[in-house]
Amino acid sequence: MKKIPILLMGCGGVGRQLLLHIVSCRSLHAKLGVRLRVVGVCDSKSLLVAPDISTEELGDPLLLEVCQAKSSASSLQTFNDSGLCQTFTSADATRKIVDVGGLLGRSTGLAFVDCSASSNTVGIVSRVVDFGCCVVLANKKPLTSSMEDYDKLVARSRHLRHESTVGAGLPIIASLTRLISSGDTIYRVIGSLSGTLGYVMSEVENGKLFSEVVNAAKSLGYTEPDPRDDLGGMDVARKALILARLLGRRINLDNMKIESLYPPYMGPDVMALEEFLKTGLPMLDKGIQERIETASANGNVLRYVCLIDDTRCEVGIQEVPKNSALGRLRGSDNVLEIYSRCYKEQPLVIQGAGAGNDTTAAGVLADIIDLQDLFP
Amino acid sequence: MKKIPILLMGCGGVGRQLLLHIVSCRSLHAKLGVRLRVVGVCDSKSLLVAPDISTEELGDPLLLEVCQAKSSASSLQTFNDSGLCQTFTSADATRKIVDVGGLLGRSTGLAFVDCSASSNTVGIVSRVVDFGCCVVLANKKPLTSSMEDYDKLVARSRHLRHESTVGAGLPIIASLTRLISSGDTIYRVIGSLSGTLGYVMSEVENGKLFSEVVNAAKSLGYTEPDPRDDLGGMDVARKALILARLLGRRINLDNMKIESLYPPYMGPDVMALEEFLKTGLPMLDKGIQERIETASANGNVLRYVCLIDDTRCEVGIQEVPKNSALGRLRGSDNVLEIYSRCYKEQPLVIQGAGAGNDTTAAGVLADIIDLQDLFP
Repeated sequence: MKKIPILLMGCGGVGRQLLLHIVSCRSLHAKLGVRLRVVGVCDSKSLLVAPDISTEELGDPLLLEVCQAKSSASSLQTFNDSGLCQTFTSADATRKIVDVGGLLGRSTGLAFVDCSASSNTVGIVSRVVDFGCCVVLANKKPLTSSMEDYDKLVARSRHLRHESTVGAGLPIIASLTRLISSGDTIYRVIGSLSGTLGYVMSEVENGKLFSEVVNAAKSLGYTEPDPRDDLGGMDVARKALILARLLGRRINLDNMKIESLYPPYMGPDVMALEEFLKTGLPMLDKGIQERIETASANGNVLRYVCLIDDTRCEVGIQEVPKNSALGRLRGSDNVLEIYSRCYKEQPLVIQGAGAGNDTTAAGVLADIIDLQDLFP
Repeated sequence: MKKIPILLMGCGGVGRQLLLHIVSCRSLHAKLGVRLRVVGVCDSKSLLVAPDISTEELGDPLLLEVCQAKSSASSLQTFNDSGLCQTFTSADATRKIVDVGGLLGRSTGLAFVDCSASSNTVGIVSRVVDFGCCVVLANKKPLTSSMEDYDKLVARSRHLRHESTVGAGLPIIASLTRLISSGDTIYRVIGSLSGTLGYVMSEVENGKLFSEVVNAAKSLGYTEPDPRDDLGGMDVARKALILARLLGRRINLDNMKIESLYPPYMGPDVMALEEFLKTGLPMLDKGIQERIETASANGNVLRYVCLIDDTRCEVGIQEVPKNSALGRLRGSDNVLEIYSRCYKEQPLVIQGAGAGNDTTAAGVLADIIDLQDLFP
């Protein structure tokens, strides 16, 4: 039985769901000949680790207790040292994480799993990579900071997995990696990688007003609490950057063309949320409506896409053919079209739910299992 | 630099293309830290192996010569023993293949790659698995014979890859494997996995006669020389069986419902090809036409699908919603819809070219590279 020690950073929605998946997959993974040994979990403030990380793990009852605590928005600080775990906080926690990475990275190996959404993990990830640890990311930040950080992360590319950074559990990164390693030449990648913006664009196509659709999406919980976090395009831009770098482009967020669906004077620093929803948004309706009509006259529809080809890496509204996978997209599904030497006339299309804690955590878990050959 | 020794069975269209890919990807693979060492290639009659398989490989000039010979429909029998390779024929070839598997399987490891379409390799594959060799298949036969053979092949599942047995290079097997290992529950898989039948069904939907479409497809080279090889559904059935077994179903081809698009009295043993094309096919037009009309009245279209769920594993014509990925399929693309716990309302969809030597060989090559962690 292969044993994969795991240290999990971030036990919010995705991390918590990952712990639940790990516990519920015990017998399935035993059949696959793999045992996932969770040696530590941390949130933004605290770290719990097994008393002896070389031989022990956090037991399933404790992991379920962690899930319970996190689902009631409680912090790991409520856990105390016990025979079941040691606890660390603040700088001590960071130091201990690096210690665990050093000890296990050099001996049995460690899968360092980042399910946080924090920039603070970039430095830690970089440290544990040095120790030979494997890294599994749902967090986009470590892959979208400087090229220097990125190069370090991917230097041992087999030790890194990050399916859930783009399209949640959709097999986008795995599929692109396969194409690349088979020597296929990728000409163009275009996709809708925001469920929220996909929903908004397909609803306005049906004749609804942009402002109404955004307000409805917010009420339905489809958007971030401040919808400008979606409409600004930064989240899609990070995904586009991850894909572009995977395709070998050496660029940063700063080099990318990122179209925001609201103008700077409606930004969060300038306009209060309520004013934006009531007054700002309706001012954008006419512009969107006109673009839809122009697209329609060309037989096209509008989608908020990420587009990467030889010369471009950008995110924003584009006209796409009504009859393409992108053009036919409805609801909140993600879709990616890949044009390459092998998929020249018709693209390789991957489509499905691109968000949700369950799906995102499933992508992380598949990544971990896929690392098994690197463990003794 | 990791070295992956390869023994290739079958150097027809796919195998030949694989050799070309391997040679042209040398610098790409060097960047990935991998060197593919082709120690042997064989066709149905002969085997060429490196003089000393432990230290030597077949050089790229020789591999290109092999490709040249096979593209002019010449056999490997035309190659002679030389300082560059040893040659073996018939039973000697089989014995030598098993020897190579034994020697390398127990030392450096060997990727045994089956790009033939032969049933004869089933026994050999089974032998080399015993030696600890990795197995990469484009050939469906070893996966679709008895459950006993299958169980043996998948006993060390990490050592087996077979992406190109279903949908050519489309990432279908890799994606299903990820879903399974993440504990996702797969409820239903439905897809169009024959470019030929996909083309035929979408053309008849456009109002053309079945007989005309099949004759046109034959002229365009879309079908096998005898289109009944496509219309009988056996090739799709093998793909369905591979998917069903991957999902844990313990069944054989014999247990499957396989719909043939022609009746037994028009079979190849009963009716000559020419008569089938001229007289047989037109007799089928009315039946297909009626089914299309019934489907259309239900708001559906007809597709020749493979369908696997809790109770069924079958291939044949089914009504599918016009607005689904399957219903919108045009031309010769393959498409697979996967319904699971994570992809419940809307399926995970994978679509694209599902045939062609280039794409199929690319899938095999990606499989080989993905085995790298199992090699020293």
